[in-house]
Amino acid sequence: MIARATVSSARQIHPTSTVSPDAELGRDVIVGPYAVIHANVSIGDGSFVDSHALIGAPTADYYADPQAHEPAPCRIGKHAIIRSHVVLYSGVTIEDDFECGHHVTIREGTRIGNGVRIGTSSDVQREAAIGDYTRLHSNVFVAARSVIEELTWLFPHVMLVDDPHPPSDTCTQGPTIRKFASVGAASMIYPAVEIGHGAVVGAMSLVRSDVPPDMLVVGIPAKVVGPSADVVCREGRLDPVYPWWRHFRRGYPAGVLPDPSADA
Amino acid sequence: MIARATVSSARQIHPTSTVSPDAELGRDVIVGPYAVIHANVSIGDGSFVDSHALIGAPTADYYADPQAHEPAPCRIGKHAIIRSHVVLYSGVTIEDDFECGHHVTIREGTRIGNGVRIGTSSDVQREAAIGDYTRLHSNVFVAARSVIEELTWLFPHVMLVDDPHPPSDTCTQGPTIRKFASVGAASMIYPAVEIGHGAVVGAMSLVRSDVPPDMLVVGIPAKVVGPSADVVCREGRLDPVYPWWRHFRRGYPAGVLPDPSADA
Amino acid sequence: MIARATVSSARQIHPTSTVSPDAELGRDVIVGPYAVIHANVSIGDGSFVDSHALIGAPTADYYADPQAHEPAPCRIGKHAIIRSHVVLYSGVTIEDDFECGHHVTIREGTRIGNGVRIGTSSDVQREAAIGDYTRLHSNVFVAARSVIEELTWLFPHVMLVDDPHPPSDTCTQGPTIRKFASVGAASMIYPAVEIGHGAVVGAMSLVRSDVPPDMLVVGIPAKVVGPSADVVCREGRLDPVYPWWRHFRRGYPAGVLPDPSADA
Repeated sequence: MIARATVSSARQIHPTSTVSPDAELGRDVIVGPYAVIHANVSIGDGSFVDSHALIGAPTADYYADPQAHEPAPCRIGKHAIIRSHVVLYSGVTIEDDFECGHHVTIREGTRIGNGVRIGTSSDVQREAAIGDYTRLHSNVFVAARSVIEELTWLFPHVMLVDDPHPPSDTCTQGPTIRKFASVGAASMIYPAVEIGHGAVVGAMSLVRSDVPPDMLVVGIPAKVVGPSADVVCREGRLDPVYPWWRHFRRGYPAGVLPDPSADA
Repeated sequence: MIARATVSSARQIHPTSTVSPDAELGRDVIVGPYAVIHANVSIGDGSFVDSHALIGAPTADYYADPQAHEPAPCRIGKHAIIRSHVVLYSGVTIEDDFECGHHVTIREGTRIGNGVRIGTSSDVQREAAIGDYTRLHSNVFVAARSVIEELTWLFPHVMLVDDPHPPSDTCTQGPTIRKFASVGAASMIYPAVEIGHGAVVGAMSLVRSDVPPDMLVVGIPAKVVGPSADVVCREGRLDPVYPWWRHFRRGYPAGVLPDPSADA
Repeated sequence: MIARATVSSARQIHPTSTVSPDAELGRDVIVGPYAVIHANVSIGDGSFVDSHALIGAPTADYYADPQAHEPAPCRIGKHAIIRSHVVLYSGVTIEDDFECGHHVTIREGTRIGNGVRIGTSSDVQREAAIGDYTRLHSNVFVAARSVIEELTWLFPHVMLVDDPHPPSDTCTQGPTIRKFASVGAASMIYPAVEIGHGAVVGAMSLVRSDVPPDMLVVGIPAKVVGPSADVVCREGRLDPVYPWWRHFRRGYPAGVLPDPSADA
């Protein structure tokens, strides 16, 4: 479906797309049918913007006065894969090697590091910070101003919430997820809570207080079960599961993860 | 990206959109790229229909016989903000000052009051009633025939369900959420359950029986903790949090909320 | 909005859509505005592909080398209803009478039987198997390689997960849902767990071990309450609710469900 230029270094902009002449597109960028790329957008070399995506969407002030609206830049690095029906706001900054699923929304002011992956239907609110090589699975909700450090995992339907007594203005603060932590599917992390370095949150848990580093918590409300290093694969083998980077290396560039034999 | 007419009172219909000549669009309506607006649609003055939206989507009978299908009207008031990739069905009625996020779906027969906001990826099933100035956050699921009164709050991933013994036809009845109530993130309200006036449901709760007015419930299943007026902000101050309208006024027009010093 | 051919047996391809000349479309297929249908797609007679859908989306290898990418076939049977903003990958196989909501994603290698319905925003990962006449409601998450047998029900926000100790590569296995089973809203089924024939999972449950046939389980973690045949409609009548096919017959063709008077 996508028009192919005969010179591989040329950009391949589908004729049905709507790309502002003021947008900055790098070499070899491929833009699919019906994608919209606004003037405030820059996209690095070798990136894909698939069909029906909307890049550089306006913030709320646009609707108050479209003519006076001056959108913040939306900067996307090299080798991005932005799948169909995705919405990236103005004021979003994303480093290289980004990849996301379909129907994702990322709001203004959010900063995303290198090599991050965000799953289908995830919803990242404004001014979140997501560190290098972090992975969010499908339909993850990230509240405004959450801090998600590098090399963490948030599994499907995880929720980071920011308001302990909603609705309020004065109490809100997003959670912090420290490096190497893993949060299981459908778990919720309360406002201002910190999930420690290498900690593990079991699926369908409700975490209302800080989790110490390298510990496993489970339940509603979540309670400490013990060190995450004690978890073994129950499917017939007894290998320790955490830290996960000892055995799970798929998709990380060389040098990003610690040596498998390193201490946690 | 959006074509700007030189006369500000003109409509601004993006040339790539597909707008039926029989649709009724008010003054200053702005329609984005690749939006589809069917013949049965009317949209009030000063409204926005953003890119990739589908307004006036057909109900199931269309697929049985497209030629015989006679769509019900889809009526949207003034100053609506309908963001990208939203689907509004025929037979939907929405009053003025509506605002919604991306990827929202609203099914036929649903009636929505003035000043309502519905968050990204929310899914409102058929024949729901949503009162004035109510706010649904991201990814809220509203079962068919739910009743959500004015000035209520449903936080991210809240679910209102309508079938106590699914699948069935004879037992189904949506919940009722009374005025000023607040339902915390990822909580589920059972069929036919009533959340009382000013009541508060804590996050990740499962509410299987009625909640009295002005009470706080929490848990799976949810139990009464005490009066919502006893909740204080735990972040260092001891101000009462509920009723929320005493301290949270952002975005409401003058006169909509009670005076902050009024009784609950 | 959709162009109507005067001869009813003609295809009706909206002029704004992007349909590959190599795609195979059956008789009377109707394609809406801004739909994308790739070359590897075949769609049976009498099917609908609504606006902004993407059919035959490429798998990950496409992004590594678009020119070398050879997409697997995406085969869709007769009388399909594929609603707006849906994404079906290459390598998906779907039999006749399929129907799905909006914003659905179905990944490569998934096989879907006859008469299946999948609700709005559901996300079916790769290589899942979904049997005839099974129904998934809104926003269901189906992990890779899950097995969902014929005539089952998964209600809104159900999650089937595949990794007991995420992230891992070696332990992953999807759940199995046996014929006539019903899984309540927002429940999660753990990896490798089997929900038995005719079993019922209550809403907001976490199922970590196998559920015997025709039993009801509820809770976090889920525990056996008793035979599903003992459940009665609590709304004033005392009729048994399960097996559901004794009283709920809506939408099934004649002969698909057992006779209402048959043994479970």
